[in-house]
Amino acid sequence: MKVYFDNAATTAMDDRVIEAMLPFMRDHYGNPSSVHSHGREVRTAIERSRKKVAELLNATPAEIFFTSGGTEADNTALVCGIETHGITHAITSPLEHHAVLHTLEVCEQKGKIKLTKLDVNEQGVIDMDQLEASLKANPNSLVSLMHANNEIGNINDLNKIGSLAKEYGAFFHSDTVQTMGHYVHDLKSLPIDSIVAGGHKFHGPKGSGFLYVRKDKKIHPFIHGGAQERNMRGGTENVIGIIGIAKALELAYEDMAGHETHVKALKKHFIESLKAGIPDVEFNGLSADLEKSLYTVLNVSLPPSEANAGMLLFNLDLAGISASGGSACSSGATVGSHVLRALNHSPERDSVRFSFSRFNTIEDVDYAVEKLKELYAVEA
Amino acid sequence: MKVYFDNAATTAMDDRVIEAMLPFMRDHYGNPSSVHSHGREVRTAIERSRKKVAELLNATPAEIFFTSGGTEADNTALVCGIETHGITHAITSPLEHHAVLHTLEVCEQKGKIKLTKLDVNEQGVIDMDQLEASLKANPNSLVSLMHANNEIGNINDLNKIGSLAKEYGAFFHSDTVQTMGHYVHDLKSLPIDSIVAGGHKFHGPKGSGFLYVRKDKKIHPFIHGGAQERNMRGGTENVIGIIGIAKALELAYEDMAGHETHVKALKKHFIESLKAGIPDVEFNGLSADLEKSLYTVLNVSLPPSEANAGMLLFNLDLAGISASGGSACSSGATVGSHVLRALNHSPERDSVRFSFSRFNTIEDVDYAVEKLKELYAVEA
Ligand SMILES: Cc1ncc(COP(=O)(O)O)c(C=O)c1O
Ligand SMILES: Cc1ncc(COP(=O)(O)O)c(C=O)c1O
Repeated sequence: MKVYFDNAATTAMDDRVIEAMLPFMRDHYGNPSSVHSHGREVRTAIERSRKKVAELLNATPAEIFFTSGGTEADNTALVCGIETHGITHAITSPLEHHAVLHTLEVCEQKGKIKLTKLDVNEQGVIDMDQLEASLKANPNSLVSLMHANNEIGNINDLNKIGSLAKEYGAFFHSDTVQTMGHYVHDLKSLPIDSIVAGGHKFHGPKGSGFLYVRKDKKIHPFIHGGAQERNMRGGTENVIGIIGIAKALELAYEDMAGHETHVKALKKHFIESLKAGIPDVEFNGLSADLEKSLYTVLNVSLPPSEANAGMLLFNLDLAGISASGGSACSSGATVGSHVLRALNHSPERDSVRFSFSRFNTIEDVDYAVEKLKELYAVEA
Repeated sequence: MKVYFDNAATTAMDDRVIEAMLPFMRDHYGNPSSVHSHGREVRTAIERSRKKVAELLNATPAEIFFTSGGTEADNTALVCGIETHGITHAITSPLEHHAVLHTLEVCEQKGKIKLTKLDVNEQGVIDMDQLEASLKANPNSLVSLMHANNEIGNINDLNKIGSLAKEYGAFFHSDTVQTMGHYVHDLKSLPIDSIVAGGHKFHGPKGSGFLYVRKDKKIHPFIHGGAQERNMRGGTENVIGIIGIAKALELAYEDMAGHETHVKALKKHFIESLKAGIPDVEFNGLSADLEKSLYTVLNVSLPPSEANAGMLLFNLDLAGISASGGSACSSGATVGSHVLRALNHSPERDSVRFSFSRFNTIEDVDYAVEKLKELYAVEA
C-alpha cells in the first residue's frame, strides 16, 4: 500500500485542472502580450483567470498578480513593500516559512530594516502584547505573520493582527500559502494588505502562484522587464500555470465545506487512533486542536525509541508512507526544523508531519496508525 | 489561412515536450525536496534534466539554475552579479531587451551602479572601441550585451566581447534568450560568466527558464526561501517546466543544423520575394544579412503608405498572419519599439518583425508576401 500524507509539501493535481491546462499546451500557444489573434485568445484566458481568482477572494482583478509561486510572491510583497513604502522596521515570528524569514533576514543584513522576531510559547502561539508594543515603538513597520503554519498547523487570527497593524499604520503581509484553497479569504472584510498563494498546495500546478496587493498599498515590481502583469512583473506569463491555479482555486471553492468535513474527519480519526494506540504520543503546536489548527496538518511527536531515532521518516517510507519531518524545502537538509526548534521540542522525541488532502481516505489513516504501532512495538 | 510568424515572441510546444511533461502532471506529483519515494522520483527527474542541459551546453550541472523564465534569469544575473561582486559600473546597449535594460536602470536609480549605454549605428551595430574605452576607464564593471537582438536579429560576437571583458576583469553576462536552442553554446570555450534561456522560445513551455553562472563567479540568490536549486533559488520547483525546457533543448540540439537549414531557406526566400515584389522595401538592422543575424528573425521596413500607417499589424492580423511590431512584451503598449527608435528608424515607414520556426513552411512565406503585396497595392 502507498499512502501520500505530505500534502502540505505538495498535492496531486486534480484531473480537471490538467484538462483545463492541456489546450494551452497543445493549441493556444500565442504570447499573451502579442496583439494578433494567437496572442489575444491567450490574453483573454489569462484575464478570465485573474477575474475568477479576484471574485473568489472578493478582491478586484487589478489587485491580483500572477507569480512563479508562493516564494516569489512573498519576496515581492516583502522586498518591494519595504522599498516602496519606505519601511524601516519589520515584525515577524521565528515560525514563518523561510520564504518570509530568509527574505526579511537578508533585508536586515543589507541594512534596510531592523527586524523584530516575536516570542512564541511552546505551542507556537505568538505573543500579541509584544506585537502591539513593537508596533507602538516602531512607526512605519511591516508585519509579516502567516495565516497558518505549514509544520504545526497553528492558525493565526488575521483579523486581530490586521486590526492592530491598521491601528498603528503598519503594512500587513500574510503568507497564506497553507490556507489558500482550504479556507475562505474575504479580502473586502480582512484588514490585510497582501497575501500570497502557491497553486500546488491545492491540487494546481507547481511553479504557479499569485500575490494580492490591496490597491491603496501598491508596490514596485520585483522582477523587471516587459510590461506584463500591468508592469508589476516582467517575463512572459506562465500561461498554463495561470490557467491551472485559477482552475484549482475555483474547484477548491466549489466544495470547500465538503473537503473540510472529509479531511477533518480523517484528522480526528488519526488523533484518536494514535492516542488510543501509542502510549505517550504527543502533538506539536496546536495541531491536535481541530479548531485552532489547519485541518490538513497533524504534527505528531513520538516517544523516544532506539529503533526509530532519526529513522522514523525512513521507516515510514519503507512502509510506503510519504510524510515529512518539517517543511519539504528543508527536509533534505539535516538541519532539522526551525519551527520545532523554536518550540523547544525535545530532541529525544521524533516528530513527523502528516498532511492530508481530499484524496486521502480513512484506510490511509488506519494503515499509517497500524505501521506506527508496529514501529513503536505496540501490540496490535 | 493562418500563418504564425511571431516565433521570437513565443513558439508552439513540440508534442514530444508535452509528452515528457504529462507524467509529471498526472502521476509523479511529489515535491522534489521531500525525501520519501514520491519526492525522490521527481528529484531524480529534475537532476536528470539539469545534467542534460549542462551536457548540451558543455557546462557542469552545478552551473545550471532553473528559473521561471528568461526575465527572472536576467534579473538574477544582473542584480545579484552586481551585489555579490561589488560591481559599481555596468555597460550595456540601448538595444537590449527590457529584462536587462529596465533591471540595470533600476540598479542605477537605486545608486548601486553607474550605467553606460554604448552607441549603436543605424544598423544596430555596437561601438566596440567605446566598449573597450569604457572597460578601461571603469575597473570592476559588468558587461551585459545580448547574443542576438529579438527585434532586428543582430548577432553580437560573444567571443570578442567576452575576451575584452576578461582582459579588463569585468563580469560578462549575455542575454541568450533568442539564440538558445537555435545556436550551439559551448561554455567551455566561450569567455562568458552567465547566460540565460526561456523555454518557450524553442518549443518548450512558457514560465520555464534557466540561468548559467560560471562556477568561479558564483552569485547570491535573487529569490530567498527554501534550499532549492542548491540554495540559489527558493521556491518549490516548476517540475513540468524543468522537464519541458530540458526536453525542448535536447530536441533542439538533436537536429539544430537541419532546423537552421530549413528556416534559413524560408528567410532567404522571404527576403528575395519582398525585394522582387515590393518597391522600396527595406530591412531593419542586419536582419537581411543571413550570416550576421538570427535566421529566425526578419524585420521589414515598408514604404510610407496611407492605407497601412499604424495599421500594418492589424491588417496582417485580418489576413490571418500573426507578426509583431517589436518585442511582444511591449507590443501591447503604444510606445513603439525602443530598438527601432535607437536606430533612428523613420517614423513614416511601418515596420514588422516576421519570426520563424521549424514549423513554418514556404507556403507560409508566399502567403505573407502575397498579402503584403496586396496591402501595398502592388499588382500581383
Ligand atoms: C532577448 C530577450 N531577452 C529576454 C526575454 C524575456 O524572456 P521571458 O519573457 O521568457 O522571461 C525575451 C523574450 O521575451 C527576449 O527576446
Ligand atoms: C507557509 C508557506 N509559505 C511559503 C511556501 C513557499 O511556496 P512555494 O514553495 O510554492 O514557493 C510554502 C511551501 O513550500 C509554505 O508552506
